[in-house]
Amino acid sequence: MSKKSDFGLIGLAVMGQNLVLNVESRGFQVSVFNRTTSVVDEFVAKHPGKALVGCHTLEEFVQSLATPRKIHIMVKSTAVKDTDRDAVDAVIEQLIPLLDKNDIVIDGGNSFYQTTERRDAYLTEKGLRFIGAGVSGGEEGARKGPSIMPGGPASTWEVMKPIFESIAAKVDGEPCVIHIGPGGAGHYVKMIHNGIEYGDMQLICEAYNIFKNAGFTTDEMAAIFNEWNEGDLLSYLIQISGKALEQKDPETGKPIVELIVDKAGQKGTGQWTLLNAAENAVVISTINAAVEARILSSQKKQRVAASTQLTGPAVNITTDKKELVKKVHDALYASKIISYAQGLDLIKTMGEKKNWGLDLGRIAAIWRGGCIIRAKFLNRITDAYRTNSNLANLMLDPFFKDVLSKTQQNWREVVALATLNGIPVPAFSASLGYYDSYRAARLPANLLQAQRDFFGAHTYERTDKPEGQMFHTEWPEVIG
Amino acid sequence: MSKKSDFGLIGLAVMGQNLVLNVESRGFQVSVFNRTTSVVDEFVAKHPGKALVGCHTLEEFVQSLATPRKIHIMVKSTAVKDTDRDAVDAVIEQLIPLLDKNDIVIDGGNSFYQTTERRDAYLTEKGLRFIGAGVSGGEEGARKGPSIMPGGPASTWEVMKPIFESIAAKVDGEPCVIHIGPGGAGHYVKMIHNGIEYGDMQLICEAYNIFKNAGFTTDEMAAIFNEWNEGDLLSYLIQISGKALEQKDPETGKPIVELIVDKAGQKGTGQWTLLNAAENAVVISTINAAVEARILSSQKKQRVAASTQLTGPAVNITTDKKELVKKVHDALYASKIISYAQGLDLIKTMGEKKNWGLDLGRIAAIWRGGCIIRAKFLNRITDAYRTNSNLANLMLDPFFKDVLSKTQQNWREVVALATLNGIPVPAFSASLGYYDSYRAARLPANLLQAQRDFFGAHTYERTDKPEGQMFHTEWPEVIG
Repeated sequence: MSKKSDFGLIGLAVMGQNLVLNVESRGFQVSVFNRTTSVVDEFVAKHPGKALVGCHTLEEFVQSLATPRKIHIMVKSTAVKDTDRDAVDAVIEQLIPLLDKNDIVIDGGNSFYQTTERRDAYLTEKGLRFIGAGVSGGEEGARKGPSIMPGGPASTWEVMKPIFESIAAKVDGEPCVIHIGPGGAGHYVKMIHNGIEYGDMQLICEAYNIFKNAGFTTDEMAAIFNEWNEGDLLSYLIQISGKALEQKDPETGKPIVELIVDKAGQKGTGQWTLLNAAENAVVISTINAAVEARILSSQKKQRVAASTQLTGPAVNITTDKKELVKKVHDALYASKIISYAQGLDLIKTMGEKKNWGLDLGRIAAIWRGGCIIRAKFLNRITDAYRTNSNLANLMLDPFFKDVLSKTQQNWREVVALATLNGIPVPAFSASLGYYDSYRAARLPANLLQAQRDFFGAHTYERTDKPEGQMFHTEWPEVIG
Repeated sequence: MSKKSDFGLIGLAVMGQNLVLNVESRGFQVSVFNRTTSVVDEFVAKHPGKALVGCHTLEEFVQSLATPRKIHIMVKSTAVKDTDRDAVDAVIEQLIPLLDKNDIVIDGGNSFYQTTERRDAYLTEKGLRFIGAGVSGGEEGARKGPSIMPGGPASTWEVMKPIFESIAAKVDGEPCVIHIGPGGAGHYVKMIHNGIEYGDMQLICEAYNIFKNAGFTTDEMAAIFNEWNEGDLLSYLIQISGKALEQKDPETGKPIVELIVDKAGQKGTGQWTLLNAAENAVVISTINAAVEARILSSQKKQRVAASTQLTGPAVNITTDKKELVKKVHDALYASKIISYAQGLDLIKTMGEKKNWGLDLGRIAAIWRGGCIIRAKFLNRITDAYRTNSNLANLMLDPFFKDVLSKTQQNWREVVALATLNGIPVPAFSASLGYYDSYRAARLPANLLQAQRDFFGAHTYERTDKPEGQMFHTEWPEVIG
């Protein structure tokens, strides 16, 4: 093929292959390279008649691309500090001497946003252009249309826009990609997206666990999720939960979910989100509970041992089934709102700190399609920020405020029921705790301030004196 | 004074002054230095007849000390990364050219353990010796006997031992100081101590908040804490809570606690603890909830605004007062056990990772006196690890298992009651969620693993197949 390619991709694992097929299907010619070159040949051979250029060397690959080159790297990033170097850096180092000024390198993996900022600065210094793009949607999303969160200079985004918009998922005709912001903004938003995904998944599991303890069959539970997917909770994760519960094991005929070991894995982005929240002093208690739940789930041996040692109540749920389904629905819906409120608060805080100029409403809009957390619900979030871009907290938007008002009683009853029956609902509880704390004009931290002044003379403010004026009490001496 | 001093201290803020007076009172001659030299003169003049040597220059200060010199730095550390430099480093840099081989520099501030490790390596390289010592007890503890957590080489500890043991608090004749471990171990353990302190304080505030919502007067609440301080909950923080609630404002005659603004401050060690837990994938949900509660408390304006927007139930607590006190007591006691179980789990995990050779029982023992979290309860923790140094989790010790078994029903009822009444109890809830998760032989993470395999082909283990064998299902296609 003598024509130069429009796009190049390095790293032909499943995600990379699917992304190539997606780009090619939109009318672009794509060059591909992979370290193990046999993978290149197999991939090209498997897709005859497509506008694919398989390359065996990076030199050949780079030469096959039209300038300014657009090179998408899809290799696993492992760096967790801005000072770490990983496979993405190795590829970049190999590319640099082969590239021309203004060529564009895109890192489409789940890179830590601080490494993205480092790479951005480094490539800019070399006269090249860099985009750190979060890509969500798994294998299927990559093939059919993912949600893409690119960060980098606006001028570079403009060059990439036609390709990104054509390959992204579409919702109501709008592509699920926008220019998130400069530098690490794209990978940062993708990281929080993943944290929110953790929260969504855990909330679904808590609902499932209550139903299971209440004696519902797996088929009954599948039907509940399928029904929920017709309403306010309509979302990819609710949908696949229903389908997963329906699935039978071909070997035993049993529901496959019941045969799966309850040890959850994680790949780090949830923990990154917690670290970032702690650094920024933003409360994301729902995501936190979700990450903690995965950790505890992975300690299966300890749990099995403890299960015969630590006592709890006998499960005794007598609530009418239909009523229970409605209550749990409301608990899940309300908790989900809290989780998004917290995640968006973190994005907002970080965006302001970094001066990224983030648009929360448009970010929510590109999560409506392609990605794992896609949900009907996100339309409402987009509306909320379109109406009021300075919304202090998602809970205060009229629509969500109303939902919370209507669901809060059932939500409480579910948490109380689970608590009294010994069923852990850490994410439901944490969400409700946040709601009740946030709406409390007065919290008991006055006693805490008294304690701090008592032992450390930390001083306190008074309700009957101007804000900022500090007081100290000479507390009585304590013996012992 | 021609005799050389046994000990030198740099940094005469209140903690430093009190520590000097403590050391001097044990029969040691102490040299003191402060950057603002007038503070030195005032301090020495204020304490005539004491074996104090006031110095106006660091040279004079160093020359006044017997070798090997023992120089305790008590200046504020602000470094939060091992690469940051702060006032402690500045003092060290000034000292180095003045010191002789084997002189000992002690950092007694709340330094981040990674900076301690850096300083330890740096001073060792210079032929000097370094101790990073956590000192807890506030101003009063510094004067009368703190709990001291020194980290550094065992041989350096041996030199410091006579002074440290004489100034530390004593419980049952045992000094509240041991050699914690090498390098940053001392400051690390002090950091977790502070995290646990956050947990203890928040749990007390949640108890107080329930009583307040149930209509108890401040005097009634003071009486409850005073009574609790005679029983299982006997501790410094319960004691000062009782005393703080008793205290009247001289200006208005009202209970001072009711006049204090409910905005809690924090100085960072709680957040450091969260970051460390996230890095090590250890669940410390109680401490986490405590840090989150302080953050939310500080958002007073948002809370006041939200309080008229977000709805909740009317508070209606009809439980008999005496019964409620008993139930809340049990909730607090059980939650406290969980918080310590989590904190010790984190110390254990980190100790193993760093090969620090930590002794959890002896660490608990030195927290029995001097420090903010001192409590009767710590004797039981010491016993637990003396009986079984490999205890997998504090909850599984026979004594604590029994307490949890006896308190768990009341604990649940308190969480349910608070939840139904809209009273946030995030730390009570998080503790109970941990208990119920840890004792669950089966958690709902099987559905989560199904979801992960569905969207990302992450694979899963099966309950009917050998551990470590991974499976993948070809899930149905999902539209939309």
